[in-house]
Amino acid sequence: MYREQIKVLDCTIRDGGLVNAHDFSVDFVRRVYQGVSAAGVDYFEIGYKNSPEFFPGAKFGPWKCCTDQDIRLATEGVDNGAKVSVMVDVGRVDMDSIRPASESPYHMVRVASYVKGIDKAIAMENRFSDLGYETTINIMAISRDAGPQLDEAMDQCERESRSLAIYLVDSFGSLYQEDIEKLVRRARQWIRTKELGFHGHNNQQLAFSNTIEAIMGGVNFLDATVYGMGRAAGNCTLELLLGFLKNPRYDVRHVLDLIANDFLELRKQHEWGYILPHMIAGQLGMHPQDALDVRKGSERDDYRAFHDRMTALLSA
Amino acid sequence: MYREQIKVLDCTIRDGGLVNAHDFSVDFVRRVYQGVSAAGVDYFEIGYKNSPEFFPGAKFGPWKCCTDQDIRLATEGVDNGAKVSVMVDVGRVDMDSIRPASESPYHMVRVASYVKGIDKAIAMENRFSDLGYETTINIMAISRDAGPQLDEAMDQCERESRSLAIYLVDSFGSLYQEDIEKLVRRARQWIRTKELGFHGHNNQQLAFSNTIEAIMGGVNFLDATVYGMGRAAGNCTLELLLGFLKNPRYDVRHVLDLIANDFLELRKQHEWGYILPHMIAGQLGMHPQDALDVRKGSERDDYRAFHDRMTALLSA
Repeated sequence: MYREQIKVLDCTIRDGGLVNAHDFSVDFVRRVYQGVSAAGVDYFEIGYKNSPEFFPGAKFGPWKCCTDQDIRLATEGVDNGAKVSVMVDVGRVDMDSIRPASESPYHMVRVASYVKGIDKAIAMENRFSDLGYETTINIMAISRDAGPQLDEAMDQCERESRSLAIYLVDSFGSLYQEDIEKLVRRARQWIRTKELGFHGHNNQQLAFSNTIEAIMGGVNFLDATVYGMGRAAGNCTLELLLGFLKNPRYDVRHVLDLIANDFLELRKQHEWGYILPHMIAGQLGMHPQDALDVRKGSERDDYRAFHDRMTALLSA
Repeated sequence: MYREQIKVLDCTIRDGGLVNAHDFSVDFVRRVYQGVSAAGVDYFEIGYKNSPEFFPGAKFGPWKCCTDQDIRLATEGVDNGAKVSVMVDVGRVDMDSIRPASESPYHMVRVASYVKGIDKAIAMENRFSDLGYETTINIMAISRDAGPQLDEAMDQCERESRSLAIYLVDSFGSLYQEDIEKLVRRARQWIRTKELGFHGHNNQQLAFSNTIEAIMGGVNFLDATVYGMGRAAGNCTLELLLGFLKNPRYDVRHVLDLIANDFLELRKQHEWGYILPHMIAGQLGMHPQDALDVRKGSERDDYRAFHDRMTALLSA
């Protein structure tokens, strides 16, 4: 598959940060940035640019509320560096702390939002756009919030936002390829002048194939993470995606090096991937929190009990 | 997805036997048989029914050349037991040792063959059919042997065999969903009066999505294994497949129990799944042997070296 317009965004540090409370060292983040840049990846999402006052008492590493200084330390001076992206959550950013794009070490801001928060997301996105940033809106939990309000939200994104792309986010990892095909076609009815993006989760080992399905439907902004590192079951792996995209500017070997040198070890310290409670949650179309919780306790491998509890919740 | 005609075949012991030299205890095989039978699976492939005289000096457990006695010990007396299947390799069975189906503890014989061996495979399949067995022909390495001879082989299977199903086997785990779609359509031009089957490998995390794609194309015989256990990257996982098939006769919880009680531990002793050299081999469309070999040595995690060596082989 080769299509010039395709952009690959690596969000290992951002989505992977949900696995380790955003606690990566600057050196590690810099190595990942160097590696994915050398691999030819277009964007590198370095974390959340939320503001710490919205998380009183919470403990987390630097990449949940990255400062411009953190970002500079990890990215400045890297040859042919990928464009740096940050994610923000609606209502969790002190906008007065944000510098104009021309004075800042990141290029793109992605606003994550549920369908119900889309008004606020667009307002926020517009403010970042005013400051000169490339922007996207990432509509989360799209398997759950799939009613008519999704159409309205997409229509609104098309008319009111200045986003480069509107992302469809399969937060629960529950969509099958035919769902993706229909969803992309539906999105295209509304989003006519912007790019579409896709971000998958791998609960059912479908993040990569769903990304391929999205590509086939014309989606050009694609999220992936090194070795699939990301919340719960993780994401489409970057090494698989680059292998599928035949664009000669991508060189998967740098991603292979990152895995060999860093991610094998990291995977021993933190879990993500094909883990049965996450599979079950994906199969049932549920939010990952219950599965994340059960993995912390003594019933972490009592899959039948988890399955029965989740099924009962669904039919309650 | 619900379609009455769909048959699920569990080949954990057979394909998984390629991971541990077929060395499962009778008790273990019996537990798996009980579990997948309780889960409502249609067929249970217990191993290879090759003859030991074709493997002089080789060391392996009972399920490479299973005797009728082995099969009876593992399967007799199980409530609502799945139909038992065995696989045979062309030229590796002493046909005089085979009892008629009416006197034997297995129902189905699947003949594995490359395209080039299809004449012999059909002859062998006919002999098993004469003895009263249900039969299939499993055409291996279908990504590699994709030239006009594949059409001839499929045509011959249709005209000369009495198989219940002709299987398309993605032995290298290199096919994408659009390949599956085209392949199934191509097969349907030749195989008009028999069922089609699909057996995937998970090198690129596509075994499940490719199985779904095959289902969408009308394929009704589906292979899967508990926790994906199988050669190299393994197979489509049974727990994912049963969750996708909405047939109420399947109950995934028995598969979850098998994983919790047996397969988590087994996975610590033997490796299969998303392992980078297998991913690379799948991405490049290569036979799994080089990746299996590299995993035994000190360069098991030198992914770049393996990638470069394989790429050089391809362009040599």
